[in-house]
Amino acid sequence: MTLSNAQRAHILVEALPYIQKYNNKIVVVKYGGAAMTEEHLKKDVMRDIVLMSSIGMKVVLVHGGGPEITGMLNKIGKKTEFVNGLRVTDRETADIVQMVLCGRINKNLVSMLQSYGGKAIGICGHDGSLIKARKISEQLGFVGEITDINKSVIEDLLEKGYIPVISTVGCDDDMNTYNINADTASSAIASALNAECLISMTDTPGLLSDKNDQKSLISKISVSDASRLIREGAIEGGMIPKVQCCIEAVRRGVKRVFIIDGRIPHSILIETLTDEGIGTMFA
Amino acid sequence: MTLSNAQRAHILVEALPYIQKYNNKIVVVKYGGAAMTEEHLKKDVMRDIVLMSSIGMKVVLVHGGGPEITGMLNKIGKKTEFVNGLRVTDRETADIVQMVLCGRINKNLVSMLQSYGGKAIGICGHDGSLIKARKISEQLGFVGEITDINKSVIEDLLEKGYIPVISTVGCDDDMNTYNINADTASSAIASALNAECLISMTDTPGLLSDKNDQKSLISKISVSDASRLIREGAIEGGMIPKVQCCIEAVRRGVKRVFIIDGRIPHSILIETLTDEGIGTMFA
Amino acid sequence: MTLSNAQRAHILVEALPYIQKYNNKIVVVKYGGAAMTEEHLKKDVMRDIVLMSSIGMKVVLVHGGGPEITGMLNKIGKKTEFVNGLRVTDRETADIVQMVLCGRINKNLVSMLQSYGGKAIGICGHDGSLIKARKISEQLGFVGEITDINKSVIEDLLEKGYIPVISTVGCDDDMNTYNINADTASSAIASALNAECLISMTDTPGLLSDKNDQKSLISKISVSDASRLIREGAIEGGMIPKVQCCIEAVRRGVKRVFIIDGRIPHSILIETLTDEGIGTMFA
Amino acid sequence: MTLSNAQRAHILVEALPYIQKYNNKIVVVKYGGAAMTEEHLKKDVMRDIVLMSSIGMKVVLVHGGGPEITGMLNKIGKKTEFVNGLRVTDRETADIVQMVLCGRINKNLVSMLQSYGGKAIGICGHDGSLIKARKISEQLGFVGEITDINKSVIEDLLEKGYIPVISTVGCDDDMNTYNINADTASSAIASALNAECLISMTDTPGLLSDKNDQKSLISKISVSDASRLIREGAIEGGMIPKVQCCIEAVRRGVKRVFIIDGRIPHSILIETLTDEGIGTMFA
Amino acid sequence: MTLSNAQRAHILVEALPYIQKYNNKIVVVKYGGAAMTEEHLKKDVMRDIVLMSSIGMKVVLVHGGGPEITGMLNKIGKKTEFVNGLRVTDRETADIVQMVLCGRINKNLVSMLQSYGGKAIGICGHDGSLIKARKISEQLGFVGEITDINKSVIEDLLEKGYIPVISTVGCDDDMNTYNINADTASSAIASALNAECLISMTDTPGLLSDKNDQKSLISKISVSDASRLIREGAIEGGMIPKVQCCIEAVRRGVKRVFIIDGRIPHSILIETLTDEGIGTMFA
Amino acid sequence: MTLSNAQRAHILVEALPYIQKYNNKIVVVKYGGAAMTEEHLKKDVMRDIVLMSSIGMKVVLVHGGGPEITGMLNKIGKKTEFVNGLRVTDRETADIVQMVLCGRINKNLVSMLQSYGGKAIGICGHDGSLIKARKISEQLGFVGEITDINKSVIEDLLEKGYIPVISTVGCDDDMNTYNINADTASSAIASALNAECLISMTDTPGLLSDKNDQKSLISKISVSDASRLIREGAIEGGMIPKVQCCIEAVRRGVKRVFIIDGRIPHSILIETLTDEGIGTMFA
Repeated sequence: MTLSNAQRAHILVEALPYIQKYNNKIVVVKYGGAAMTEEHLKKDVMRDIVLMSSIGMKVVLVHGGGPEITGMLNKIGKKTEFVNGLRVTDRETADIVQMVLCGRINKNLVSMLQSYGGKAIGICGHDGSLIKARKISEQLGFVGEITDINKSVIEDLLEKGYIPVISTVGCDDDMNTYNINADTASSAIASALNAECLISMTDTPGLLSDKNDQKSLISKISVSDASRLIREGAIEGGMIPKVQCCIEAVRRGVKRVFIIDGRIPHSILIETLTDEGIGTMFA
Repeated sequence: MTLSNAQRAHILVEALPYIQKYNNKIVVVKYGGAAMTEEHLKKDVMRDIVLMSSIGMKVVLVHGGGPEITGMLNKIGKKTEFVNGLRVTDRETADIVQMVLCGRINKNLVSMLQSYGGKAIGICGHDGSLIKARKISEQLGFVGEITDINKSVIEDLLEKGYIPVISTVGCDDDMNTYNINADTASSAIASALNAECLISMTDTPGLLSDKNDQKSLISKISVSDASRLIREGAIEGGMIPKVQCCIEAVRRGVKRVFIIDGRIPHSILIETLTDEGIGTMFA
Repeated sequence: MTLSNAQRAHILVEALPYIQKYNNKIVVVKYGGAAMTEEHLKKDVMRDIVLMSSIGMKVVLVHGGGPEITGMLNKIGKKTEFVNGLRVTDRETADIVQMVLCGRINKNLVSMLQSYGGKAIGICGHDGSLIKARKISEQLGFVGEITDINKSVIEDLLEKGYIPVISTVGCDDDMNTYNINADTASSAIASALNAECLISMTDTPGLLSDKNDQKSLISKISVSDASRLIREGAIEGGMIPKVQCCIEAVRRGVKRVFIIDGRIPHSILIETLTDEGIGTMFA
Repeated sequence: MTLSNAQRAHILVEALPYIQKYNNKIVVVKYGGAAMTEEHLKKDVMRDIVLMSSIGMKVVLVHGGGPEITGMLNKIGKKTEFVNGLRVTDRETADIVQMVLCGRINKNLVSMLQSYGGKAIGICGHDGSLIKARKISEQLGFVGEITDINKSVIEDLLEKGYIPVISTVGCDDDMNTYNINADTASSAIASALNAECLISMTDTPGLLSDKNDQKSLISKISVSDASRLIREGAIEGGMIPKVQCCIEAVRRGVKRVFIIDGRIPHSILIETLTDEGIGTMFA
Repeated sequence: MTLSNAQRAHILVEALPYIQKYNNKIVVVKYGGAAMTEEHLKKDVMRDIVLMSSIGMKVVLVHGGGPEITGMLNKIGKKTEFVNGLRVTDRETADIVQMVLCGRINKNLVSMLQSYGGKAIGICGHDGSLIKARKISEQLGFVGEITDINKSVIEDLLEKGYIPVISTVGCDDDMNTYNINADTASSAIASALNAECLISMTDTPGLLSDKNDQKSLISKISVSDASRLIREGAIEGGMIPKVQCCIEAVRRGVKRVFIIDGRIPHSILIETLTDEGIGTMFA
Repeated sequence: MTLSNAQRAHILVEALPYIQKYNNKIVVVKYGGAAMTEEHLKKDVMRDIVLMSSIGMKVVLVHGGGPEITGMLNKIGKKTEFVNGLRVTDRETADIVQMVLCGRINKNLVSMLQSYGGKAIGICGHDGSLIKARKISEQLGFVGEITDINKSVIEDLLEKGYIPVISTVGCDDDMNTYNINADTASSAIASALNAECLISMTDTPGLLSDKNDQKSLISKISVSDASRLIREGAIEGGMIPKVQCCIEAVRRGVKRVFIIDGRIPHSILIETLTDEGIGTMFA
């Protein structure tokens, strides 16, 4: 792409209404999927986040970390069982989850944000007791459901100008660690913060009206229609909980909730700073 | 220009280091020439200013208004004399200057900035006694030289998030009005504010090493070299006072001082947000 | 008047309860009539305003400018038509109105306030989009009715210690300029600010119970009685809209609304700082 | 005095430059003598103080209380001895001094200031350890000399908008109470606060060039001339320590130091708010 | 008691939950009885107060002063009459009450708090018109009932980090002084401040279920049960008004109200910083 | 230990001067050794930290994590080499160090502090680029020496009331991770923060005058004497770098620097809140 600087400037100016729309507003980004595993996408996302922060958005980055956790469990020869797609999480496993999420992935993201000129702090559910949790069932062990979000930690960091980077590990009063689903956590955090916007990065184009046709993207859907599609089986598998988190966020007051395709470079920027809605918006 | 949104996003990201460089910094723009008289350029500049403000720069807009003043003087049939290129300014003329600058040009600029989503207040040297002045000579009447800049007015407006738009009319303790050269005023204001940057918009490409060759642009020049060029006659005519204002600003601590070509659309943005230096920088 | 300083001091002390009553309260002054056209009255009013500001009132000065506008229109040979006493205002006329109000009258008032030691900034409806307006009718052109008051501009200036001086020019989203009646504007501004007091300066003693007897001043009147007097024709001509603005201000929560005689030197001070009510108070 | 309200208003306006001069400045008033014992003078002073506070001065009132202390000592039949004009102060006497100063005089002044609409708090050297002291000599007992002024107590009260009323009782680390000379204390307090002005109320017109001629008032004197007058014996008796306190205050940076005649009604106001200097100013 | 420092540290740590419970909360202490007359108890209480302040509680100390007032009245030979146990308070008596409370007891407490490293200011009902009052009956003279608490004085001092020490003298708009019951005043002050806790120090163990058995302490009682005990005569004499003040405080929103035994060293600390409730708590 | 609550209260009061001494002061604790590996000591330290924070100290906790890092390296079968007692740290090892320090140890400490009622956030050198570092030598790999401390991250957290818990991992501009010695880091952090106090927890009683006699503790030593002891060989082995860090901290302005015996329960509290100095103080 060989553009003159005048053309570049023109493009910047075209972003102005979008910049104004999100100025000083909280935008929660659920980061995951290919955007997290492919190095060039990861770099793009981190630069996008720093840009959004630099032009006045209050970005909160929430991440999980499936593959790296599995890698570490394999490395130390820890076998884990799955029940209904959820990893049975004994104390040792929960420790590994915490260590990989909070010590490796989280701090590496912080490091990358800082290297692009951002100002970031990495926290998890233990810091300021951000995410209080309890067991979903005895069988699953330390797989947690959220009982409370102590949002003041995030607000304190935003007020001081930091990008909070959040590992979705939960805590309780007995110093236990819980593995929390990142979609659920980002939805709960966005709701607690009364965020302007929740963006969930996935490895799909968004909601499809025909699941066999990647071109049948639904640009905008009401929460009632989305609920109906789940009931009718039009949405299935791993998309069901993701969509439910989006519905929940809308119901609890988040103004704009998007599922976008993290495989497309700069998809968050395209969604927030151009006239193109590249994924599905819930309203 | 048909660009995908991904390409647009990429261009935004490329601006990141420049956005970070000027974040929360004061940028004084001396507005004038073709950029002020040609409607499409004017609109571009105003949108550029709003964009710069939206992404965190503290922009101060300083303007003069030669042609419109002349137009109004003609309209009311007021004849004026020139001495060494300076308009002899009797009290009636000074009143017309004030009226046109502060009442027409200034408020129209404010109106345009507001319509693009900016937050602007238009002031002149009387407001908060911003520009104190005295006569240069009895012969020239109310042509003023600056005796003091009361910068707190500007700082108060910047602190509250406004773009100050400044008409270069001066005041004294006896309620007189002075016509102040806008280049001089913008240089004095930038110095008083300890600005990061002063950008002077002209109708030339910048300083030329060969005045007959528009392509011989000097990208960067030291203040001693610039002084030498004036002494040697390489800089001449109307450019001499402009260059002297730039030299003065550098000497009084403004970090970056530019003369740029206001005839090029988005020239301020190109100068501040891309890797291209389109005019001449004084250092 | 030859008074000893002890007598002077005594008089200052007598003003104490009034000073305390208005301390830190917003007082909107609608400035106009003889107080604006006669030089010695003008100087008195400006010194009164600076005094009121110096002893802790938050004064907001609102002005129109009939005669000077007419003078300028005549000077450039612009003919204007009147319909029901309202000037038909085409775009060129609106431009002249804005230029004279915002560029001449407004800045001259600011200059005078500053010369008496006050701290003033002159703004109009364009600044911070303070007065949003629309056409009253197509026939009248850019004669505006107010659709919104963005009071934060005034609040920001008051918070920083300035006396806001306001030209009653209105704006819309398309950069048009509207001529706004100054009585209406001052009433709307006082209401929006939840002002303690609105003082309207006129060239009459106040409301008269017998319009042929200048001595028949009504010191205090209820809004219902005032409305009745209008219906019964006891109030007539130019006083009708003035009185209606006062009634409207009381109804929208302004605590004290006065019509006072601007032809009397220091009438504002007498009204606010002595036990004499010199005009008519609406309650 | 039958003045029209217009005349009253005019007089208020004439005070404007003085109001502006002292706006937000610290003025320490040493209160004593006839102004404290004669009821109508006392009321005048308290109203003056409230006025000064209401129009923006930061007034600090410092008082002693000779006659009332003697009265109470007599009442309880306590005999006291004098050495070189200083009361020998045993522990019981010191207790009485504290009780009368801090419990009677101080709180009565506060009560009067409050009843005139002022906002006052009465403190002494114990509060926040404002005045640290030690014995001048064993012989004199608890007659103290100041070792330190902890000015933050006063600054805290001024910041919150109170008029601090100060009894000149000193403290040490062993919970002793000291009788401190009020002239010395007010000079030390004004110096510590870097006050704009110290006004010492006395029962004389000020410094006289001829001590037998009450008309020979010296309006303004340099500290070196004042020192010389003391050395030469032109100043004598109780005026010596008062003048020394004034000299000391000027030397330690207080901008304007006055001795005024407290027997004249409103003498403080006349000194601060009119063009008449009624006492002696040290410079 | 010979404890190792490790044991001491352990005891400090055991206080942690109590420290956290009262952190940044307002605790009003009604000080009186033996704790005020016995020197070693007085010192203990003052050190306790400083400790409580140092570890983050916002302590407000309210005191009366019966015995010392009587002592002073005797000393000056002033006879006073009692009606229904209330001292008939003529103006002279009221003056003595004010003088002893505000000038002696109050400042001595402040002095002691300061000597232990606390930061205290002593005030009474006149300061900032804290306690507005009127006569209970003409017969009793200046015995006052509270009409208003101007809590901003206390809030201002707490905000600046001071321990307010309050003499329960009341004021009115005519500069009268009222003797106010200290139990009533502390209850009204705690209610006005929305205090976390009101602690009333008495010379009894608390409420007894059997008034002849000092061991029959009621640890916790509801306000309805306490009211019933008064009606049934189980509470009698001087305890009735004390208990009524406690009931009133609970009803007006004070969270924890205690009557404790001031004769026990450190009883306030034991109540607030250990697991032992040593008096009676009203809930 | 059976103590009455009165005795407990007395002990609390005895801590008062120490509480006052450290009120609002920064205390950096280097946490390590037995206090970190033995569970009951760990719990004691965490409760001590929460107590110190609750009573007004600004505690900063800095930790390393030797044994747990070795454990994890063994678990994944990673062999590491040592050169001069320093672990050769390749990129994979550095990743493990970061993961264990920041993900396990750090968050577990935060969790424990939170469970005792503290308010903590766990960060490392990447967060806000707190610890900038570079390689000591190519041979040692990612063993870092500190090039800069960006203290604003810590100050921001302290200002918001958090206990910052810091893993001593360093960063550079290329997203590398460095293993930083915790003694060095805590000394550099204490210096950068201009801390009141640095406490280094070790598994020794402190400095010994006779290294074979555990009773020969040196309570206080000057930095010059400490330097001499190193030169003379009286201090040896692992104590040398610890002592050098203490010397460095004193030289760079930390007021009190201690080496204390972390094996003694509550040793930090004993050092800061009692009259016993249990370790060695550098001055």
